[in-house]
Amino acid sequence: MMELYDLAGAEEDRRFSPFCWRARLALAHKELPVRTLAWRFTEKERLAPSGQGRVPVLVDNGRWVADSWVIATYLEETYPDRPSLFGGGAGRALSRFYSNWADSALHPGLIRFVLLDVWRHLAPQDRDYFRRSREERFGATLEAVVADRDQRLDGFRQSLTPLRLTLQTQPFLGGERPLYADYIVFGGFQWARCISDYALLAADDPVAAWRRRMLELFGGLAGKAKGYPVA
Amino acid sequence: MMELYDLAGAEEDRRFSPFCWRARLALAHKELPVRTLAWRFTEKERLAPSGQGRVPVLVDNGRWVADSWVIATYLEETYPDRPSLFGGGAGRALSRFYSNWADSALHPGLIRFVLLDVWRHLAPQDRDYFRRSREERFGATLEAVVADRDQRLDGFRQSLTPLRLTLQTQPFLGGERPLYADYIVFGGFQWARCISDYALLAADDPVAAWRRRMLELFGGLAGKAKGYPVA
Repeated sequence: MMELYDLAGAEEDRRFSPFCWRARLALAHKELPVRTLAWRFTEKERLAPSGQGRVPVLVDNGRWVADSWVIATYLEETYPDRPSLFGGGAGRALSRFYSNWADSALHPGLIRFVLLDVWRHLAPQDRDYFRRSREERFGATLEAVVADRDQRLDGFRQSLTPLRLTLQTQPFLGGERPLYADYIVFGGFQWARCISDYALLAADDPVAAWRRRMLELFGGLAGKAKGYPVA
Repeated sequence: MMELYDLAGAEEDRRFSPFCWRARLALAHKELPVRTLAWRFTEKERLAPSGQGRVPVLVDNGRWVADSWVIATYLEETYPDRPSLFGGGAGRALSRFYSNWADSALHPGLIRFVLLDVWRHLAPQDRDYFRRSREERFGATLEAVVADRDQRLDGFRQSLTPLRLTLQTQPFLGGERPLYADYIVFGGFQWARCISDYALLAADDPVAAWRRRMLELFGGLAGKAKGYPVA
């Protein structure tokens, strides 16, 4: 069976990396069973065979594959007879923008709500590393980064307008059924849900309705994972 | 031959609507010849058969089709043997987000650079209507809306990050060749280029390189149109 190195918190079953969730949902979409291996930020050496130090890392029959986008395209090419993650070459090319939008617009918005909650859930050996590296990146303490999150909530919800308008006209970004683009964007919301009780979305937001649909996929794979309830 | 009602300025050949450009490029992609009809904002009654008052409006063999997205899907369904605008059903569903991102993120950014320049290029009979309706929408004079545009330039360029990252790894949003998603996003840049000499993009920006490729498509359809030169 394949193995996936998957970021975990202090509790081994708290899995919260948005990029690892992309990979887990891609594997489920492809109907490929996987054994996830709990991994902590400070265990870089365990990933050495992948040539880098971040998760997700997939190990498929001795082949190490790192990076969520590379994993998705690897799965698509290696298992072409399984349900497609992209719906063809055009869909694959068109999915890139979703990934870049999530990484450069969605996640930077999300992190300023949940950064301190991430730290609170980390394994003891990861806490100093995480606080030091993130406080250097943000130029502020973790506490200061999230201090004004209530004031930023309206702006964050406003930033989801392209997503909201799309999900008002179709149930998934991929259309009638989810595609990898859905897993890309959902990864961010699952990250937040697994690590924080902060109510990012109003219950009547079409984005929240889509999130509920995503949580139910594959027998509730994402919805049953350890985290906080959402609207 | 099909006809397309196309927004024009004081000069009949200055065609600057971002939504009309989506339709014109979609028609060219489909290899469908079209006769464009210059239309001004105050000529709502000419569009009456379409049941609404905005362009683009396509007239195909007596059938009136309004709204750029509806036109694109109409062309795709009516002329399935021509080159596909979406690359299949998944590509079509995935293109919706591009449209909503352009409308709710890209265009609101762009308009605050070019709004006064639009007014300057309008036909005399359109100027009062445009100034009144836009000043009401923005709650400010056209002059005030664009007054601080130099200060907003860095932020605008930053907002293009998802686009830039994507175009660093593939020549078009659709991959190796342009798809309707490219026309959606390019429409905004062509709108700006046709109406304003403001330098929105640095010459070495991958987005500018993509814009150059877009301007050259279909024998320079967009590049030869009346407007201002770009980097």
